[in-house]
Amino acid sequence: MNNYSKAPAGVVGFHGYSGAELVQILSRHPRVEPVLLEHRESDDRPRPLHAARPKRLACTAESVKSAGLAVVFLATPADASMKLAPEMLQIGAKVIDLSGAFRLGTAENFKRWYQEPHTAPSLLAEAAYGLPEFCRSRISPARLIANPGCYPTAANLALRPLVHAGVIERESGIVCDAKSGVSGAGRKPSLKTSFCEVSENFSAYAIFEHRHVPEILRTSGLEESELSFTAQLLPLDRGILETIYFRTRASADDLLEIYRRAYAEEPFVRLYAPGHAPDVHSVARTNFCDLGVACSAGRAVVIAAIDNLGKGAAGQAVQNMNLALGFEETAGLL
Amino acid sequence: MNNYSKAPAGVVGFHGYSGAELVQILSRHPRVEPVLLEHRESDDRPRPLHAARPKRLACTAESVKSAGLAVVFLATPADASMKLAPEMLQIGAKVIDLSGAFRLGTAENFKRWYQEPHTAPSLLAEAAYGLPEFCRSRISPARLIANPGCYPTAANLALRPLVHAGVIERESGIVCDAKSGVSGAGRKPSLKTSFCEVSENFSAYAIFEHRHVPEILRTSGLEESELSFTAQLLPLDRGILETIYFRTRASADDLLEIYRRAYAEEPFVRLYAPGHAPDVHSVARTNFCDLGVACSAGRAVVIAAIDNLGKGAAGQAVQNMNLALGFEETAGLL
Amino acid sequence: MNNYSKAPAGVVGFHGYSGAELVQILSRHPRVEPVLLEHRESDDRPRPLHAARPKRLACTAESVKSAGLAVVFLATPADASMKLAPEMLQIGAKVIDLSGAFRLGTAENFKRWYQEPHTAPSLLAEAAYGLPEFCRSRISPARLIANPGCYPTAANLALRPLVHAGVIERESGIVCDAKSGVSGAGRKPSLKTSFCEVSENFSAYAIFEHRHVPEILRTSGLEESELSFTAQLLPLDRGILETIYFRTRASADDLLEIYRRAYAEEPFVRLYAPGHAPDVHSVARTNFCDLGVACSAGRAVVIAAIDNLGKGAAGQAVQNMNLALGFEETAGLL
Amino acid sequence: MNNYSKAPAGVVGFHGYSGAELVQILSRHPRVEPVLLEHRESDDRPRPLHAARPKRLACTAESVKSAGLAVVFLATPADASMKLAPEMLQIGAKVIDLSGAFRLGTAENFKRWYQEPHTAPSLLAEAAYGLPEFCRSRISPARLIANPGCYPTAANLALRPLVHAGVIERESGIVCDAKSGVSGAGRKPSLKTSFCEVSENFSAYAIFEHRHVPEILRTSGLEESELSFTAQLLPLDRGILETIYFRTRASADDLLEIYRRAYAEEPFVRLYAPGHAPDVHSVARTNFCDLGVACSAGRAVVIAAIDNLGKGAAGQAVQNMNLALGFEETAGLL
Repeated sequence: MNNYSKAPAGVVGFHGYSGAELVQILSRHPRVEPVLLEHRESDDRPRPLHAARPKRLACTAESVKSAGLAVVFLATPADASMKLAPEMLQIGAKVIDLSGAFRLGTAENFKRWYQEPHTAPSLLAEAAYGLPEFCRSRISPARLIANPGCYPTAANLALRPLVHAGVIERESGIVCDAKSGVSGAGRKPSLKTSFCEVSENFSAYAIFEHRHVPEILRTSGLEESELSFTAQLLPLDRGILETIYFRTRASADDLLEIYRRAYAEEPFVRLYAPGHAPDVHSVARTNFCDLGVACSAGRAVVIAAIDNLGKGAAGQAVQNMNLALGFEETAGLL
Repeated sequence: MNNYSKAPAGVVGFHGYSGAELVQILSRHPRVEPVLLEHRESDDRPRPLHAARPKRLACTAESVKSAGLAVVFLATPADASMKLAPEMLQIGAKVIDLSGAFRLGTAENFKRWYQEPHTAPSLLAEAAYGLPEFCRSRISPARLIANPGCYPTAANLALRPLVHAGVIERESGIVCDAKSGVSGAGRKPSLKTSFCEVSENFSAYAIFEHRHVPEILRTSGLEESELSFTAQLLPLDRGILETIYFRTRASADDLLEIYRRAYAEEPFVRLYAPGHAPDVHSVARTNFCDLGVACSAGRAVVIAAIDNLGKGAAGQAVQNMNLALGFEETAGLL
Repeated sequence: MNNYSKAPAGVVGFHGYSGAELVQILSRHPRVEPVLLEHRESDDRPRPLHAARPKRLACTAESVKSAGLAVVFLATPADASMKLAPEMLQIGAKVIDLSGAFRLGTAENFKRWYQEPHTAPSLLAEAAYGLPEFCRSRISPARLIANPGCYPTAANLALRPLVHAGVIERESGIVCDAKSGVSGAGRKPSLKTSFCEVSENFSAYAIFEHRHVPEILRTSGLEESELSFTAQLLPLDRGILETIYFRTRASADDLLEIYRRAYAEEPFVRLYAPGHAPDVHSVARTNFCDLGVACSAGRAVVIAAIDNLGKGAAGQAVQNMNLALGFEETAGLL
Repeated sequence: MNNYSKAPAGVVGFHGYSGAELVQILSRHPRVEPVLLEHRESDDRPRPLHAARPKRLACTAESVKSAGLAVVFLATPADASMKLAPEMLQIGAKVIDLSGAFRLGTAENFKRWYQEPHTAPSLLAEAAYGLPEFCRSRISPARLIANPGCYPTAANLALRPLVHAGVIERESGIVCDAKSGVSGAGRKPSLKTSFCEVSENFSAYAIFEHRHVPEILRTSGLEESELSFTAQLLPLDRGILETIYFRTRASADDLLEIYRRAYAEEPFVRLYAPGHAPDVHSVARTNFCDLGVACSAGRAVVIAAIDNLGKGAAGQAVQNMNLALGFEETAGLL
């Protein structure tokens, strides 16, 4: 298990919060070591002298090729990902993209929700949606993996088994009230993510218009008019909790049994006994998605919790890499 | 406007967060000055020498009577309020109770939600529910005012006009996803409100079972089976934001117009243009309840924000006092 | 006490944290009402419909003159203040500047600490340093008041009486270990003040090089080589606490007595009994500076606490205005 | 590296913050697996169904003996440690105690600072002080290791090499202004560690009287009258930063060179170039102590940062275990 036997894995966007988390997870991975691909940013964290640091390369097709990187993670905005993904694929690297660039299936869908044209539309069809619990067989052989959004990861793990089981009274609508820590908004400074604006505050944003809505619809099987999704900003660094409401004739035990069957073999979905619910601390710095259920007189609540930088971004990206490179799916993640 | 012309108002439970807020508001009130009624707690905040402090008295019927207190605020737990309210009423003081003791109308209802017998049931019928926007005419002449719970204040101001206007498709259910700062849980130390448990965390509690549910049902006119209410703990000191969902054929402008008519004369309810929503900072340290609406294809979201210690407790208690003592309703609150 | 009798006071930089605090304090002031002078920024806080807002004017000499503003507060960066102050003085308005532009007495001193040339050096000599406890007689008649920095306000109130009393063993050095909330860094977004960088963090900056050092030296009477000053960023919104160390033969009671005499008539300096110390909550949202002392075997510690937006900026600016306009010094501040 | 080859290590006090951190570190350790020794507390974190959990045993000499635990960690208050340590030693387990019970060398010293009599004084002489950088040769063979306090760990790593090198002008005094996150105060609920008291606050406590002072004096070689130590509470979960001041003729490069020589072979002490300083994020969730230096005209500042639960408690305890059991010193800690 020495470093020489580890495969190099490139990370573009390593200064961002998801990218930095990726580097940290990969540094502990038994089969892979991270290589930082310098793209645009500059580092300004204070740093000790002589601290061991991952190798750095320029983020060019040539350097990636000559370094023999089998996989490149793009922890970049969608526009950068649309530019970099084709370059990296062309030199034979597998690409795991953490942006929204390749998640929505069609250029039209992308245009509607991201308000910009897609600049690499020919790759949309082949991109595998990287939610292993539902798409494992497409992820393993894929060249290009679209790592899911943070909110949709929790929402789809909570909703899809119930939608498929037919226990939700869809005509009454489904509510997904979602709350996220600030790291989900990225590292680029903005007034909205400034300490004094966030601290002692809580706010809703992008009501009915969040870019993650189409991912939830696509994977869960719900219609847009059935789903009310609100994103909200918590005064904390990392973590997502979604409180999901619907009407049903099922009991909490029924719902739990549906989850049990759906996730019996899944290492990263954990269930809670009725009357108990996960919180953000339950999943902090893990790749778990925790689910709790409660029902009363026709009404149901599901609580879903993930770490937005873990199962919601970098952790899930490594899970996808494990599938794509044929490693143990949990390698580096438990 | 000198101190000698100010009426003394007693505060029991002045060490608690609601009680301390009451003392602070009353200290700036043009017609009243606070008198601290020493009941059980001890003070341990560091204090400057020679700082001006409100007068203190023992919390006994005799001292309250001889000091001529026209009104006594009970910022105490329900069991203490059930004991103190009759004593204070008997000596002729008006009582404004911030606990849940006198909010639920009947001893049966109290027993169900508070899991203890009511020890002053004869006062339940005369207690006025202190939500001025809907109950002003009962509050003004009342001897005993039951100051509403924090969650129900926001929920009822958001829901009641819409329920009465008949625009909510009630058979699809109404969701009230409520989030509160930690001061709502009181000052008594507990693991749940310890810094390390709350910081970087967010958690749901008392799903379908919160004591504030019956207050919402009673005032809004909804049935229990129609309402899904979840209380959640935000990692911040003070503030409540409720995200309320329902299905409707009305537009955001329609809903806003209903609110406009309902609250045209109300000094403490503020509305936002569609596409804008209040956040916790909007109402921090105020007596306002701010409401924002959004609609899309049959689905509606209302965002309601208050300060749980302001309109959710002490601010509203002073508003009630202003009504009960014949002062300007906004005195000390703008 | 109706609005018509209130004098208009202009605020430039009202979107910043100090400027917004100024507007809030002035809105409650019995003799003055705020007028917003639009300079550069845009507002992006969510806002209720029909909320009462202060009058707004363009920030030009003409509009200020025609509105008859007796005083203009500049809550702007030093470069803007150096440009605006002469314009406002010329049309006869008094100017209270919250930046560092006019605090350091000479253009050379400004150049050394602010690394830029002073563009209005002719005003430096007449600017009164706005620390009322020590400079009251110069402030009252001044046309231009240089409102002190936040750190120096606390440091000088703690140090100057002791330096003048000669009880500090200066040859052993004085340490001022200063900690500030994030609002002290202003509202302009930056990585250093982003939520995820500040939360769960604490960091020192500008060691031995902070721009506030010369203000401390000038007012306290210490030499640069005697003072070790470190500024540090607390993960909180507002508040400063300074822990000041020196060697002395005096006892805690001796030190307290020196403070008692120095501040006997001061409404905004409060003292604590030995063994007690103020904390940030003691002074939050006030114009107080709280001081606590402890001594043991030749060593002394003074704890000084202020609100950086209160006595450290906007509160003190209003105190200075009260002096300059002949109002009660505490008007609007208690 | 399968579980069967791992040695069981007992943890008493696993519900506390240090104990829980110990369990987490030990769970990733290549040579050891944690065993929870149930002493007093009860668990109340929400828990997923079927989650893997460490083995649990009653905390009795018999069960520890029959389970063959080679080492027992006591993450307990001093009084419990004084009772449990002799029992565990008697059955042949090595004991690593995280309380202050065995750190101060003599019963008199313990009595002075802990205000209670020592109930296991016969063990004081043999207890090794567990600061590996200075006491490695005593730790390796020890039966009983007194894991250092969090504040002294950082202070001694910063001060001892400089004291020994004679570069500090001791007659001018040394200031250690120390700040800690709230987890350092333990998990037992108290008003002082309640969210609403800590959030947006910063406070000093135990000025000149902190129990950790004698540990600093003992290891650094300073006299009590030379050291001014103040402990202060940061509104954050975990992390310590100490700002240390003294007068010296040495330059920052000189000080750095002293540290370089002292820590050349140390895996857990990291140095920063002059002009750079670590912050709390630098060391969060690590076993590192980071040191930065600055000097100017006879004055020096050293910034020392650790994670109070890492190098300040559980991390260092595991480092001590590694020494005592003959493992690689960094095992489980990088």
